[in-house]
Amino acid sequence: MELLKVSSKSNPGMVAGAVAGIIRTSGSAEIQAIGAGAVNQAVKALAIAVSYLEGDGIAISFVPSFADIDVGDDQQLTAISFKVESRKI
Amino acid sequence: MELLKVSSKSNPGMVAGAVAGIIRTSGSAEIQAIGAGAVNQAVKALAIAVSYLEGDGIAISFVPSFADIDVGDDQQLTAISFKVESRKI
Repeated sequence: MELLKVSSKSNPGMVAGAVAGIIRTSGSAEIQAIGAGAVNQAVKALAIAVSYLEGDGIAISFVPSFADIDVGDDQQLTAISFKVESRKI
Repeated sequence: MELLKVSSKSNPGMVAGAVAGIIRTSGSAEIQAIGAGAVNQAVKALAIAVSYLEGDGIAISFVPSFADIDVGDDQQLTAISFKVESRKI
């Protein structure tokens, strides 16, 4: 599954375009975000991707989960992972 | 559909419990959040609700959208609305 990393500075419209492209070709994707600002941008991107894909007859929904990310020096951060599911409408 | 309003100070575990309860009885729910902190708490709550409901054989996913909220004095804020969908697993 293709993994997109989103930060608080990511452009939601661009992330939405990337998500839509991955979903059109493979049907599933995963987005990872660390911190409130990044999670907010990811959710905005997902809301935009919903409307991008509606025009292609594809409905998407998301399952969030917590993911421990290794950031070196034996340190870990907790990220939010959004698994994107799709179905024809 | 039952509407839960989440703020940046909401406790994700408590919101998750409320979401799980609504999903068990009605099968669908809606969460509304304004601002990055509130969106982050809502997503954490949904991630926790996923594991609460797995034990009941229920899978949930959400669809985010933008919603204009009237806050009086002819002012509007943009909220994120999370529609929660469920299915038996």
